[in-house]
Amino acid sequence: MSSNRAYRLAQRPRGLPTAETFELVEEPVGEPADGQVLVEVQYLSLDPAMRGWMNDAPSYTPPVGLGEVMRAIGAGRVVASRDGRYAEGDHVVGLLGVQEHAVVGADGLSKADPDLAPLPKWLGILGMPGLTAYFGLLEIGRPEPGQTVVVSAAAGAVGSLVGQIAKLQGARAVGIAGGPEKCAYLTSELGFDAAVDYKNADVPAALREACPQGIDVYFDNVGGEILDAALAQLAFRARVVICGAISQYNVNGAMRGPANYMSLLVNNASMTGFVVFHYASRYAEGARQMGEWFAAGKLQSREDVVAGLERFPEALLKLFEGTNNGKLVLAVQE
Amino acid sequence: MSSNRAYRLAQRPRGLPTAETFELVEEPVGEPADGQVLVEVQYLSLDPAMRGWMNDAPSYTPPVGLGEVMRAIGAGRVVASRDGRYAEGDHVVGLLGVQEHAVVGADGLSKADPDLAPLPKWLGILGMPGLTAYFGLLEIGRPEPGQTVVVSAAAGAVGSLVGQIAKLQGARAVGIAGGPEKCAYLTSELGFDAAVDYKNADVPAALREACPQGIDVYFDNVGGEILDAALAQLAFRARVVICGAISQYNVNGAMRGPANYMSLLVNNASMTGFVVFHYASRYAEGARQMGEWFAAGKLQSREDVVAGLERFPEALLKLFEGTNNGKLVLAVQE
Repeated sequence: MSSNRAYRLAQRPRGLPTAETFELVEEPVGEPADGQVLVEVQYLSLDPAMRGWMNDAPSYTPPVGLGEVMRAIGAGRVVASRDGRYAEGDHVVGLLGVQEHAVVGADGLSKADPDLAPLPKWLGILGMPGLTAYFGLLEIGRPEPGQTVVVSAAAGAVGSLVGQIAKLQGARAVGIAGGPEKCAYLTSELGFDAAVDYKNADVPAALREACPQGIDVYFDNVGGEILDAALAQLAFRARVVICGAISQYNVNGAMRGPANYMSLLVNNASMTGFVVFHYASRYAEGARQMGEWFAAGKLQSREDVVAGLERFPEALLKLFEGTNNGKLVLAVQE
Repeated sequence: MSSNRAYRLAQRPRGLPTAETFELVEEPVGEPADGQVLVEVQYLSLDPAMRGWMNDAPSYTPPVGLGEVMRAIGAGRVVASRDGRYAEGDHVVGLLGVQEHAVVGADGLSKADPDLAPLPKWLGILGMPGLTAYFGLLEIGRPEPGQTVVVSAAAGAVGSLVGQIAKLQGARAVGIAGGPEKCAYLTSELGFDAAVDYKNADVPAALREACPQGIDVYFDNVGGEILDAALAQLAFRARVVICGAISQYNVNGAMRGPANYMSLLVNNASMTGFVVFHYASRYAEGARQMGEWFAAGKLQSREDVVAGLERFPEALLKLFEGTNNGKLVLAVQE
């Protein structure tokens, strides 16, 4: 345990990250100071938002600096602690970075109980993706019983939960996902009412068929053409939740704006953006409810675990290719 | 009074309306049936929304049919009535159409009192533009004292009122308008705190200077680049009100969507559209408040009156050129 392997940001990518984007370095393991703990990183959450953190542009959080360890949320085991709240052997979740060992401030950590659920679930359904689905859908989307909720990237970590929470509210859930396998997963295993395969269907026509009364809540993770297709079919007083725009993150130059935004005017509809951090003061409430639903078997999730720290760069690309099945997690040890 | 001149829609324009868009016809004056009145049309309201009504596309109201009298809100004098609510000599406002005499259902009319204000003001500050500013700003924008409200097309019928109502709420008002004359009007006569001349200034830089704390409420009438510039400078929890998109109405092909819409996500901000008709059940409340403010001298307006029915096609273009000064009204008689 004397050496730590870490992926540091070597170059800001234009478009998709490449082999030159990161550098794998080997360096001594750090020592925790007062108020810090040393964590052996076991799992890393790979998220679309990581692409935005690589850009040198102002956003809700500062960019990762060149030469810094790539930012990532991870789960691991405390191996040394200089904070009274954490002891050796505790499992924790926090911004650990893409590396094997992390020295981090205890304030930014939360505990994970591997007896309640395996650690990868603490990076998905019981972690930030779960809270993102919970607050985005219930606080901004506000579906009412019988209303129609459409979500894009519906087989992903956030989207799969959005549809299931919508069902728990008595709403109809329609998912947009890529390929027949993902679509079958939504309707057969997660209880979605319908699924639209954007890789093989005419999305506007399929949405019309799946949403004969229009779309009351559209939870968007993708932007681009799919956002425009959903805007064109809003119901009166619809709520559009902007959670992400993965189709646009690797575009060089200007993003594509939603050309159909005047549908908001015709339908007295709203489009509201958020980042889960905006709800930080209410994480405990969200985590409690998600945990209850999970324990009661009312919410399902699956994780796509890729093993081996050195597979980080290639694993990250799965998100943008849409080839991950469920929450994408990197297991640091093979 | 045996003949009526009317502008009928002859062709659906692509881009700006042209000489071929309308046909001026002379036809017999109609006779009111039960529940109808015959109105001598005195003033017609020329509005950006009229451009949308000429398109054969679904919207909040059906398109004007080819061969139909061009839809317009007007004010005039009742010359014959077959409805108990209206008598000869009453002044009324309603969808009278671009013509000299209109036979219309009494249900769609409201009374205008020329002793309180000249008829053109009943098409502006005391009419639909006034209600549009009132409901759009107060129900969707919801400015708080000390917050910054930015409005585009700020010297226009709606925009000039949005800024003044914002000031009555204790907010700061910043107007975007074209040319030094309009900008001076905003700050010297209407009490705006600042004005941005989009024809001569670097709009993003000028907005930054005028809104050092960011934009809390952006009331958009124009779309396009100016919407993008405002989105880029939203404050946290900002509200964007989509009232119109005059820069896009004459574009052939796809509209330009707001490429900076991800600013909504970063700032937990919302963008909400509306048409004043959505507030029809509350017109009385809005009209009472606007009337009180007007009577108390707290709201000012100016009207740009073009005289002569046959000048309708050219007068309409002033809206899209931005050459009108205040609410554009056509006086039917020269």
